[in-house]
Amino acid sequence: MELGSPGVAPGGVSVSAVLPAGGSGERLGGATPKQFCAVQGRPLVSYAVRAMERISWISDVIVVVSPENTETMKTIIEKYGHKKVTVVKGGITRHRSIFNGLKVFAENEFSSHLLQKPEVVIIHDAVRPFVEEDIVAKVVMAAKEHGAAGAIRPLVSTVIASAADGCLDHSLERARYRASEMPQAFLFDTIYEAYQQCTDYDLDYGTECLHLVLKYCKTNAKLVEGTADLWKVTYKRDLYAADSIIKDNLSQQVCVITNVKETLAQVGFLLPESLKSQIKVEAISQSLSKNDSHLQNIISGQCYNFVCVNVHLDISENNSFSIGMEDLTMIKKFARETKKKNILVYGLLIQCKDPLLLQETVNSAAALIMALIKDRNPELIGQLLVA
Amino acid sequence: MELGSPGVAPGGVSVSAVLPAGGSGERLGGATPKQFCAVQGRPLVSYAVRAMERISWISDVIVVVSPENTETMKTIIEKYGHKKVTVVKGGITRHRSIFNGLKVFAENEFSSHLLQKPEVVIIHDAVRPFVEEDIVAKVVMAAKEHGAAGAIRPLVSTVIASAADGCLDHSLERARYRASEMPQAFLFDTIYEAYQQCTDYDLDYGTECLHLVLKYCKTNAKLVEGTADLWKVTYKRDLYAADSIIKDNLSQQVCVITNVKETLAQVGFLLPESLKSQIKVEAISQSLSKNDSHLQNIISGQCYNFVCVNVHLDISENNSFSIGMEDLTMIKKFARETKKKNILVYGLLIQCKDPLLLQETVNSAAALIMALIKDRNPELIGQLLVA
Repeated sequence: MELGSPGVAPGGVSVSAVLPAGGSGERLGGATPKQFCAVQGRPLVSYAVRAMERISWISDVIVVVSPENTETMKTIIEKYGHKKVTVVKGGITRHRSIFNGLKVFAENEFSSHLLQKPEVVIIHDAVRPFVEEDIVAKVVMAAKEHGAAGAIRPLVSTVIASAADGCLDHSLERARYRASEMPQAFLFDTIYEAYQQCTDYDLDYGTECLHLVLKYCKTNAKLVEGTADLWKVTYKRDLYAADSIIKDNLSQQVCVITNVKETLAQVGFLLPESLKSQIKVEAISQSLSKNDSHLQNIISGQCYNFVCVNVHLDISENNSFSIGMEDLTMIKKFARETKKKNILVYGLLIQCKDPLLLQETVNSAAALIMALIKDRNPELIGQLLVA
Repeated sequence: MELGSPGVAPGGVSVSAVLPAGGSGERLGGATPKQFCAVQGRPLVSYAVRAMERISWISDVIVVVSPENTETMKTIIEKYGHKKVTVVKGGITRHRSIFNGLKVFAENEFSSHLLQKPEVVIIHDAVRPFVEEDIVAKVVMAAKEHGAAGAIRPLVSTVIASAADGCLDHSLERARYRASEMPQAFLFDTIYEAYQQCTDYDLDYGTECLHLVLKYCKTNAKLVEGTADLWKVTYKRDLYAADSIIKDNLSQQVCVITNVKETLAQVGFLLPESLKSQIKVEAISQSLSKNDSHLQNIISGQCYNFVCVNVHLDISENNSFSIGMEDLTMIKKFARETKKKNILVYGLLIQCKDPLLLQETVNSAAALIMALIKDRNPELIGQLLVA
C-alpha cells in the first residue's frame, strides 16, 4: 500500500471529500444536533473537518448542512480557521444531502463557482471526529481500483431479524457480517451516476452509498477493515467518550515554570523526574512574568498545552504562610489570558519543612499536576494548590 | 405491564440471574479484562452485580469467571458487600460459561450447595453496568409468557455481508434488523434443555442464547425494545463513557458547610441560591468539626456524596491573607478520611472586599463548586480554592 506523499494523493488521483452534517441528532436526546455539540469547547463537526482538511492531498471539503444551520457552520469555519471548506445546503435525508454535496462538482447552477471535479470523492461523517490519514488513504486507493470502497468494523452485538409478531425470526452469524462505517470513497463518476439513476424511495429511505453503487452501477465496493476510532458519535455517552479522548490528546505535555531558589534546586530536579514517567515535561526555571520572552514564545507557539506554575514560599515560624494578593491576582489574570488559547495555567505551592519528606511532597505535587492536566477543568485555572 | 412489587417478581415467578464475566477484553486493548477495569474506583463487574442485586425479586446472582479470576472476584464481592452472589468457574467460551452458571441450579456436583432452581433465569453481562429494574422486569415477564425474551436496540450502522474476495456482497435493510443486547431471560427449563442438547460447535462458536432456544426448543424469543443505557462496554472509549455517566450520577447533590459570621450571612444565602439551579444543595451553617454530630450523621449516612467547605477569612490591610497551617492540615486530613467512603471534600475561600461585587464572587464560587463536583477528581480533595 503506497500512501500519498504530502500534497500527492495515493495513486496520484485528485481527491475531495463530502461531509453530510444535516442530521438532527434525535438519538442524542438534546436540542442541539450532535455535529454542533461542543467537545472541549469545539463543535464536533470542526474536528471532522480538521481531520479531512489536514490531509494535504484532499482538495476540497464540502460540508452539507440543513438550511437553518448554514450560518452556524459558516461561523464555525471562520472561528476555527478552516480553509478548504465549501458549505452546501442539504436535503431532507442523508442521501439527498450527499447528492447535493456532489452536485457542487458537477452542476454549474448549484454553486457560485464550480469546484474542480475530483477523480475520487470521499464520503465521511460530521460526527466521526477521529479519522486518520492512513485509513482514508487505504479507502481512496481501494476506490480507485474497485470503483467504490468503505471502512468496516466487526459487529459488537449479534444482529437479529424480528418477525411481524415482535418475536425472533432468526439471528445472523456474527462472523459473516460487518458494520459499515465511514469513510467511504468512490470514483466520482460512479457515485454520481448512482445518485442520478436512483429512485425517490432510495433517496428518502436508504442510507448506504455502497448499496447504491452496487444496485445502479454493478460496482461491488471493496471493504477495508477500519480502526476502532472510526465510530460514530450517536448517543450522549459517545460525546462523553469523545470528550475524554480529546482531553487525553491534549494532555500529553506539561510545561513547569518554577521560581526555584538556590536552596530548593532539588525540587526543580525532582519534580520533572517524578512527572516524566507519565508525561512529557518541559521545565523552565524562571518566574512567571509578562515580559519574559521565552515564556511568551512558548505560549504563542502553542508548544505546550499546559503551564503549571510552581511557587515556593518559606513557611514562617508561626506555622502559617502568607501569600501576597498580588501574586494570586497575577496568576489568575495570566490564566484567564492563556485560556483563550486553550492553554490552562494553574498555580502550585510546594511546601516542605522537613528535607527528608521532600521526595514525598514532590510526588504529591506531581500527582496534583497530573490530575489537573488530565481533567482540563477550565474553572480551576489560576487557582493555587498546595502539595 | 405489571412490574414486580418489592420482593415479588413480575408475574410472581422466582427469578435468578447469571452474569458471564469470563471475557478476556481483547478489544479493549489492555491487560486487565474489561469487567475488572475500575470505573470511578470500582470494577465494572461490581456495578453490573449491584444492578442485579438491588432488584429485590432476584434471588441469586451467579457470576461466572475464568478460573484465574476467581479470587479477584471473591475479593470484589467482599469489598463492595455483595450479598446474593455465587462465583462459578467459567468455560473457555461464553456459551460454556453460561452453561456452567446454569448448572449451579441443576446439578449437585457442581456446587457445594445446590441453589434453588428459579422459574425464570436472567442472562446479563458483567460489562453492562447500567441496566434498570424496569427493562429487567419487562424481559422477565416476556420470558414467562414466551419461554424466552431479550432486549434489542436499533442498529447504529448498516450491516453488510462481504463476499470471499473482500468486496460487498449485500447490505441489510437497516429497519428490518436489530442489535441483540442484554438482559435476556428464559424459562429455566427451556434454556437448560437447549444447552444440554446443543453441539460442541454451538458451545465453541455461538454467542446468542436466543438462537439456541430457537434451534433446540423451537422457542421464538420475544424481543423487547431496550433503553440506550444497555450498551456493552467494549472499547476503551466505552470505559470513558461509563466513567462520565457514573460521575454524573454521583454529582447530583452537594452539601455546603460554612463558618458564616454574622456579617457575612448574605453568603450563606446567596451561594446556595446560585447553586440550586444546577444541583441539589444542603447548606449547613457551621464549622467543620470532628465532633459535630450533624455533620457526622450526614457523612455516615452517605446522604451527600460531596461536602464543600466554605471558609471565610478577613483580608488584612496589607493586601495579603494568612491561613493557619492547622486549618489546611485539618481540611486535608478530614478529606482523606471521607474519601474512603467516596465522599470528596474541598475547601473554598470566598474573599470579597467590595460588597457590590459579592454576588459576582458568589457566582464564581458556585462555578468552582460545580466544576469540582462534576470532575470528582480525588487528587484535589482537601485543597483550598479561592473564589
